[in-house]
Amino acid sequence: MAYPQTSFCHTTLAPRTLLGQRRRAVAANTLQYQLDVLKKTGRYDAFRLKWHPVYDRAPEVWPIPDHLFWDSDVAKWIEGACYFLQQECMPEIADAVDELVNMIRSAQQPDGYLNIHYTVVEPGKRFTNLKDMHELYNCGHLIEAALAHHALYDNDQLLGPICLYVDLLCKTFGSDPGQTHGYPGHPEIELALLRLYDRTEIPRYLMLAKYFITERGNPTGCDGRHYFDVEAEARGADPNMKPAFYPEPRSLWYHQAHLPIVEQQTIEGHSVRAMYLLTSVADLVRIEQGHNDLRAATHRLWRNMVNQKMYSTGGIGAIKQWEGFGLDYYLPQGTSEGGCYSETCAAIGVMMLAQRLLQTDLDGRFADIMELCLYNAVLTAMSTDGRKFTYVNQLASSEEDSSSRNDWFTVACCPPNMLRLLGTIGGYIWTYSTLNTEQKARIDVHLYIGAKLEFDCAGDMIELEQETQWPSSGDVKFRLRSRKVKVDLRLRIPGWAESWKASQERRHRLVVNKGYVTISSDWLEQQPEFTLSIPLKPRLLSSHPLTTQNTVTIARGPVVYCVEDSDNPWVQDHFATLLMDPSCSMVEQSVHDRDLGDSYVALTVTRGCSILEPDKFEDSPFLRDNGLDKAKPLSDVNFVPYYFRANRGGKGHMRVGIKKAG
Amino acid sequence: MAYPQTSFCHTTLAPRTLLGQRRRAVAANTLQYQLDVLKKTGRYDAFRLKWHPVYDRAPEVWPIPDHLFWDSDVAKWIEGACYFLQQECMPEIADAVDELVNMIRSAQQPDGYLNIHYTVVEPGKRFTNLKDMHELYNCGHLIEAALAHHALYDNDQLLGPICLYVDLLCKTFGSDPGQTHGYPGHPEIELALLRLYDRTEIPRYLMLAKYFITERGNPTGCDGRHYFDVEAEARGADPNMKPAFYPEPRSLWYHQAHLPIVEQQTIEGHSVRAMYLLTSVADLVRIEQGHNDLRAATHRLWRNMVNQKMYSTGGIGAIKQWEGFGLDYYLPQGTSEGGCYSETCAAIGVMMLAQRLLQTDLDGRFADIMELCLYNAVLTAMSTDGRKFTYVNQLASSEEDSSSRNDWFTVACCPPNMLRLLGTIGGYIWTYSTLNTEQKARIDVHLYIGAKLEFDCAGDMIELEQETQWPSSGDVKFRLRSRKVKVDLRLRIPGWAESWKASQERRHRLVVNKGYVTISSDWLEQQPEFTLSIPLKPRLLSSHPLTTQNTVTIARGPVVYCVEDSDNPWVQDHFATLLMDPSCSMVEQSVHDRDLGDSYVALTVTRGCSILEPDKFEDSPFLRDNGLDKAKPLSDVNFVPYYFRANRGGKGHMRVGIKKAG
Repeated sequence: MAYPQTSFCHTTLAPRTLLGQRRRAVAANTLQYQLDVLKKTGRYDAFRLKWHPVYDRAPEVWPIPDHLFWDSDVAKWIEGACYFLQQECMPEIADAVDELVNMIRSAQQPDGYLNIHYTVVEPGKRFTNLKDMHELYNCGHLIEAALAHHALYDNDQLLGPICLYVDLLCKTFGSDPGQTHGYPGHPEIELALLRLYDRTEIPRYLMLAKYFITERGNPTGCDGRHYFDVEAEARGADPNMKPAFYPEPRSLWYHQAHLPIVEQQTIEGHSVRAMYLLTSVADLVRIEQGHNDLRAATHRLWRNMVNQKMYSTGGIGAIKQWEGFGLDYYLPQGTSEGGCYSETCAAIGVMMLAQRLLQTDLDGRFADIMELCLYNAVLTAMSTDGRKFTYVNQLASSEEDSSSRNDWFTVACCPPNMLRLLGTIGGYIWTYSTLNTEQKARIDVHLYIGAKLEFDCAGDMIELEQETQWPSSGDVKFRLRSRKVKVDLRLRIPGWAESWKASQERRHRLVVNKGYVTISSDWLEQQPEFTLSIPLKPRLLSSHPLTTQNTVTIARGPVVYCVEDSDNPWVQDHFATLLMDPSCSMVEQSVHDRDLGDSYVALTVTRGCSILEPDKFEDSPFLRDNGLDKAKPLSDVNFVPYYFRANRGGKGHMRVGIKKAG
Repeated sequence: MAYPQTSFCHTTLAPRTLLGQRRRAVAANTLQYQLDVLKKTGRYDAFRLKWHPVYDRAPEVWPIPDHLFWDSDVAKWIEGACYFLQQECMPEIADAVDELVNMIRSAQQPDGYLNIHYTVVEPGKRFTNLKDMHELYNCGHLIEAALAHHALYDNDQLLGPICLYVDLLCKTFGSDPGQTHGYPGHPEIELALLRLYDRTEIPRYLMLAKYFITERGNPTGCDGRHYFDVEAEARGADPNMKPAFYPEPRSLWYHQAHLPIVEQQTIEGHSVRAMYLLTSVADLVRIEQGHNDLRAATHRLWRNMVNQKMYSTGGIGAIKQWEGFGLDYYLPQGTSEGGCYSETCAAIGVMMLAQRLLQTDLDGRFADIMELCLYNAVLTAMSTDGRKFTYVNQLASSEEDSSSRNDWFTVACCPPNMLRLLGTIGGYIWTYSTLNTEQKARIDVHLYIGAKLEFDCAGDMIELEQETQWPSSGDVKFRLRSRKVKVDLRLRIPGWAESWKASQERRHRLVVNKGYVTISSDWLEQQPEFTLSIPLKPRLLSSHPLTTQNTVTIARGPVVYCVEDSDNPWVQDHFATLLMDPSCSMVEQSVHDRDLGDSYVALTVTRGCSILEPDKFEDSPFLRDNGLDKAKPLSDVNFVPYYFRANRGGKGHMRVGIKKAG
């Protein structure tokens, strides 16, 4: 039961927790809201294959037609809906799923092909531009929708047609002479194919995924040349006409196709593509033996991402132009500092990748990052009521880009991804495995979220419950119920935790290995109820010295904090002149926001902040001293969790990393 | 005699000075070298109007065909050659000028039109894309070449045909109903037209320049719409197909055409365009009364450039994509910090603009920047022997972009601009004016360069000589010779000068006004020979606190310093981990490099530098302290002038702003 998309059914989230509330908001608002948008924009009916005026429009981002993602927008909605329908009865949503599935079935071509653009807009052009036209990407999301539908309804209404489509792809793509030696410009189908293989056990689905993964970036894979070059030439494409998101022509690294994955030394390009790709690679490594080189590559690229190209919020992608990675240590916080992209979907992708890596390597460093993303770069993307979203999540606002959320976007990938993540979050909390024959089970707890896990092992119903107000409180009360099966637990001890303890008298020494403490079934037989306590107190993070920043960031537990104008109405300049001394004094306060329903810990720096007064020193390049000691002291600067920003109106002034006083 | 391009003839530079040596290198090598390149690349013969294979090539930077600048490459070479031919006899150069002039004359169309691309490659398409196709830009450089040719040979061989071409433009462009209400995408012709007006005194040339300047950016100037929109529509251009150098479609600010100049609040876009434009605006303000709004605009934009968008070297342009300005205070030093463009031509443009502003406002802040650019962002662009150049002048090297020079580039604007600048540098040193009727003259000395100025006033030959080894030494020996004419001097006292004195006994108090000390004719009658002494000692410049940098830069006089691997062979990482404490100790040493022939002052920081050891602290985003106090002390770190970099081979590791310790 490795996939969150299936294992989540075994978890029920407690409603009155942060994640429980977000899930409820999404179920109550987002699902219906997104359905309304699908209908309003024409996406809903697009599988009827009629012409829509948007198909005539010149692309906003050349050469990507605006409607190109409609297949996947619909598929992702269906997928998210099916997740929530597992645990909630929503007739209108179920009816829409049904109607959409029928439309999709009716859109299938006789040979199995299923794609709106290449049926309606450019018939006869299928598979001529795998690099740019999201053809296989759309199929990947259809596969994921079909798997969610099949898991909910246990019928082949959607899965059947999708498998026919995939069978066509298995014939079309591969290493045989008559086949196309190609692979998608936007990875997604690879991870979907592996899940399809897991569900159906049909080997050619695994083989196709493996082909796409291992052929990618092959410089001589197609007539002795790179597939994307051959494909472009066959299309008569002008090699100097580059997409807006390429800094120069032939930017293959944008697609992580500049080299075979096993040769890639650094993580580059479009962040979401990279995350979906590496998620599939990590899953392939899990499924099949003999991929040590791919495994080494995923770990190498993970390390480069986390150590050199990740924001303190877990966000990735400094560069707006290609929505992706910049150079090592280039981490500006916002537009006035040179940029910051940190796309929501990319942070969700980091979580997906971390979750995959954990299945092969139980290592707290993966789970720590998964949690960091969840509580910061991911959660910040949605308003508390589930109606407004962000695509870009900067760490500092500016006049050009204030800290605020929008309703929808032309490329509407982020809200449905939030739906899919929160729909399956139960599957991220823990991983369980069973050895039925030996009446043993193991549960690895990655995230501390109030929830209950129930699963069968050797006829016994195992139940593990955690009760907690994490991340406000660091106490997690566990309760295990198991009659005969011996259950071992492994609990993550976060890397930032200075100390921890498991309550009750300990008669056995607890061993921490790679960030997880093993709590044996023997220990649990004595204490089936116990409390894990991890003290959560504010700490300061410095910018890495190899960035050009010189900032301090406040964190508490997994939550990164920010200043907003709502709590600091004196701000005029997006906190650009606010300084903070690392030796500052801070107080905590528990806050319950009645309007929004959120409870959180607010932090106030009572002493140690100051304000620069730029008009007090020279402007010219001959500036002799930087005046950082000419700052005016400021008391009571108020911080809130970054995920909580932009929920209370205001001017949209916000900042995470504060300039270090000094 | 306001223009350096004409006044320079009155100045002879002393050979054994920094600028004298650079001029000699350029006369000895660059001129011939560039002529060879013109011949080798096909530019030389392009005015024969025959097809060249390069015309078939898809543009490297869409939509700008690679050959589009050939007209101006040739024109700029002619112009530079004519400057040097004023003071040096070079028969082969003179023959080439002659041959080129004849080819240009022969390329003229019957109606006066003169342009290679629109005669050979796209006949019938003239004036259909003023925004992108450099049509008027090329004409501007032809004008400047013609003026230089006319000044040297005192005939109309080139000036005649060019004036015919300009007459055609005067008919074509203007505010009358039958005329095209357009203006160039790349300013240049405006400043050239004003000089043409100065030479010929023909009013329509002034009017055309004024039209181009004041019509620019008019949102309703053409059928109630922006001219560039109308022009694009008439061409059937796809508005979403944007040039590679636009971050989004319709980036009018790239051309400083987003608003009328008088409404522009900040300096934006392509740096060279901005500098050429503002140079012409400043000159229009000088020529005609009643342009207070334009004058205010030039000062406002100058201040924004110098105070918020200029590097410590005088370089401008942080953004590679559009070769121009970023947001206020966004000043990364190099590629690993997010970029840095600092184009050579742009720094030369700053000097041109400063020189123009000085003609209306004698203010040391303009001349200080002019000098800063000369000794740093400009001089750094050429090797000591005049054979190698840089287009981009970053302040820190990286693995991606080492500190080194190239021979030539597809867009070859920088070497010829260096030629034109050094050819006329005598006109930048000082400005003189005469009141013949009153037998008075005044000389404003902007730059301290060993040179002699000679000019006639009321039949008297005035001679002012300065003898100096500036910027190594701060002593400048002046010698004035004048029989009857009373000469006042105004000498610039640099803004960074902590003290200064004029030697000899002073019997009159010397008054400094806006950075210039007035030395009256009375005083000079007593001391026609005197020494101005400005102590040059190293000082430290801090990065502005509103940038994200936290660096210290060494300067001495106008010269900014850098570290290079040649003097610090231990460096492995482009000095990214080098730290410097502002309280460091430094020693000076005069160096004469025998191989290169340069003399300069080297600086060594004996104590106060240290090296970070990145492997000694955590890589993760949970970094608790930035380890800047874990650095290892380093003694004897050697600095050389930034203009001297990349002349001695080595690995190309270089850095100007050093990370501040502490």
